Amino acid sequence: MAAEPQAIAGGTPADLTAAEAAKRIEQGQLSSVELVESCIERIRQVDGKVEAWAFFDEELARTQARAADELRRSGKGAGPLCGIPVGVKDIFDTSDYPTENGNRVQKGRTPRKDAAAVAMLRAAGALIMGKTVTTECAYYHPGKTRNPHNPEHTPGGSSSGSAAAVAAGMVPVALGSQTNGSVIRPAAFCGVYGFKPTHGLIPRTGILALSRALDHVGFFSRSLEDLALLAEVLVGWDEGDPDTQPRARVPFREVALEEPPVEPVLAFIKTPHWDKADTDMKEAFGELRETLGERVEEVDLFPSATDAWEWHRIIMETEMTANLRHLWDKGEKKLSQKLRDLIARGRETKAFDYLRALRMIPALNASFDEMFEQRYDAIITPPAPGTAPKGIKSTGDPSFCSLWTLVGLPAITLPLMQGENGMPLGVQLVGRRGFDARLLRTARWLEQRVQS
Amino acid sequence: MAAEPQAIAGGTPADLTAAEAAKRIEQGQLSSVELVESCIERIRQVDGKVEAWAFFDEELARTQARAADELRRSGKGAGPLCGIPVGVKDIFDTSDYPTENGNRVQKGRTPRKDAAAVAMLRAAGALIMGKTVTTECAYYHPGKTRNPHNPEHTPGGSSSGSAAAVAAGMVPVALGSQTNGSVIRPAAFCGVYGFKPTHGLIPRTGILALSRALDHVGFFSRSLEDLALLAEVLVGWDEGDPDTQPRARVPFREVALEEPPVEPVLAFIKTPHWDKADTDMKEAFGELRETLGERVEEVDLFPSATDAWEWHRIIMETEMTANLRHLWDKGEKKLSQKLRDLIARGRETKAFDYLRALRMIPALNASFDEMFEQRYDAIITPPAPGTAPKGIKSTGDPSFCSLWTLVGLPAITLPLMQGENGMPLGVQLVGRRGFDARLLRTARWLEQRVQS
Repeated sequence: MAAEPQAIAGGTPADLTAAEAAKRIEQGQLSSVELVESCIERIRQVDGKVEAWAFFDEELARTQARAADELRRSGKGAGPLCGIPVGVKDIFDTSDYPTENGNRVQKGRTPRKDAAAVAMLRAAGALIMGKTVTTECAYYHPGKTRNPHNPEHTPGGSSSGSAAAVAAGMVPVALGSQTNGSVIRPAAFCGVYGFKPTHGLIPRTGILALSRALDHVGFFSRSLEDLALLAEVLVGWDEGDPDTQPRARVPFREVALEEPPVEPVLAFIKTPHWDKADTDMKEAFGELRETLGERVEEVDLFPSATDAWEWHRIIMETEMTANLRHLWDKGEKKLSQKLRDLIARGRETKAFDYLRALRMIPALNASFDEMFEQRYDAIITPPAPGTAPKGIKSTGDPSFCSLWTLVGLPAITLPLMQGENGMPLGVQLVGRRGFDARLLRTARWLEQRVQS
Repeated sequence: MAAEPQAIAGGTPADLTAAEAAKRIEQGQLSSVELVESCIERIRQVDGKVEAWAFFDEELARTQARAADELRRSGKGAGPLCGIPVGVKDIFDTSDYPTENGNRVQKGRTPRKDAAAVAMLRAAGALIMGKTVTTECAYYHPGKTRNPHNPEHTPGGSSSGSAAAVAAGMVPVALGSQTNGSVIRPAAFCGVYGFKPTHGLIPRTGILALSRALDHVGFFSRSLEDLALLAEVLVGWDEGDPDTQPRARVPFREVALEEPPVEPVLAFIKTPHWDKADTDMKEAFGELRETLGERVEEVDLFPSATDAWEWHRIIMETEMTANLRHLWDKGEKKLSQKLRDLIARGRETKAFDYLRALRMIPALNASFDEMFEQRYDAIITPPAPGTAPKGIKSTGDPSFCSLWTLVGLPAITLPLMQGENGMPLGVQLVGRRGFDARLLRTARWLEQRVQS
């Protein structure tokens, strides 16, 4: 049922998952230099069409790969991602590559310090392959990237380059971020796995701040196991992010690979935006429900949640306006009309409405907690209205993500289906707040069930 | 130099400080019942004029006193406040007394659960003497309480009853709260000690929420040692207050009683509101500076802080409007014109201005941290423009407190001086964020220096 990206040749190191590659590197069957050379080769082959990279330097990638191999040979604490190249969305500060946040005001910006998530990747042995294209300030105005499955279609956004680079086999995994639908949507459009863990699990220190309430770090891969591997590396506390907290280490991979003790029950939630889903998506979900039989039940969203999209909009516009004020002050005219319109709206929001919207988050969470506690292992719902729309002037509609982002629930999209035109269609699973490892386990069960 | 409240007779148990009374109770020289009877007697004598209590029940007080004596006799973990009666501002939920938050909408409200601070007092062995009068919702509209030094004068607000009850010897200590100047101002007007510890040190769970950024729990006493004693009991973590955090226990009393290793240097800061200070206050500060000689230096407030009063106003009006919405919805017409005006203004605040004001708090804190690190042990500044103003229709001007409340610095007022008319004048000391025990030590040094 899964779609194969046209650009992937198969069989070369570039096509390995991160977990497979890390295992081979650890066992001495593969070097980081070989892996990185294979990825460089892939980039040379396909990136002319895809344009996934904002910054990419072959020599910088090679140097890091040699250092990783050196470290592994020395036997000194090579981490779980030793020698694995990672793509990093260009809103994460990096101390080697520039970080322009996809906007023209910050052209040539070279931060000195790695974002916390980047530092965690490096500490785990990973190397930063390059910076992937983001939409302008991770909002709607698109970058140059195209969908690897068909360059006439959008890869989705805002983490466009990360999703496309992973889909095209240029890197096994990549970092992205989601404030509305910026991980789940592009992952679904590009036919890869995308994971946005619970709000506050991964520190956002050193990334372009749009909204403290809504910003999430997320990531892309070509296997569920890789999502678990990255979660193990990236979940943690950082004093720069007040929404993180010290936690006991969660063995994400171990839990993800367990059999569920009882067969999961999924809640199929259409949300008030179901009418936006196209025929492809509706048919695919019809099939999926047949496949899953009694393991899935249709559940109505509780009425109080129907305004959630409005609350999301108020919070996002308000906090983005406050956070992007410095860009506006420095170079208003260099910002896209879409972003200027957002800021103009955000300036007019009443604090009273903003605070009320913020207060709805814990209220909604209490309702979802109850739903999960009483019966359901996860919610199953579309990640997007359909396959990637044609054209690269828009990145598609995030409506099927906004609610889950607002409440900070963990969400995964799996590339399990495809549309009439052969483009990938995702399936989104949404879990209980803080139960990220179990969501991975449920996702694995779903994948096996669908593929069997 | 200190003023003696007219109402205090002296010599009876009601005139003991909490620390003295606790010591006598521990040593078996005094029972809680004797202490509480003495306080009841005082209330009968003076409260007709002062009207410090919103709810007071002699029998409920006696019952708790008997239970405390029983507990002490049984030898089972009587805490540091065993048998000590405490006055509690009527915005703290109490499971025995009603809690009306000083407004007409919540008449007859009887919460089931104690506020966290009340529970901490009870766990330390204290008993709740009664609920003290607060202004309407701890804002400006005054309650019935009068200044014990002269009933024609305001006791200050919003913690009017707590300050007056302690000043008149009806209880040795009392709880209050400060969102602008609601602990420091009434303490100064009533001639008692007032302490508002660093923001986030004392949990606010179960008190009427006005502003997460600005609300502080504070308290009143007739000695510095009692402030330290209460701090030891009340500082702590509560999961209901996200601004608190688990901390190591601070031995406030021990530190407060230490000699400073070197003589402190105080920064005398006039603030942009100095012109509001009356002749009494200006003369008293002139004398104080002569007494302290080279230990005090006049310091100009950094220019960026001059807008702090405006930021304070924006945050207070905005958050109060959001927090008091349920009262407005239930009984708009039962609210005072002052409170309705505040809510009308608060509804119009732009979220953009509100978020900008919130962001100034850490920026200002960084500047104050630097000032304290480089040279000064504390800031010395008036707690109010002068002695308690005549009339009880207003609770006086909080301008000399707003800045310190905004930045969340610990503040103490000491009843060290008096005005021409014999009414008390306070001296406010403001310390570094989180260095509350040292501020108490500096306060003790100041008191000894002034009284010697």
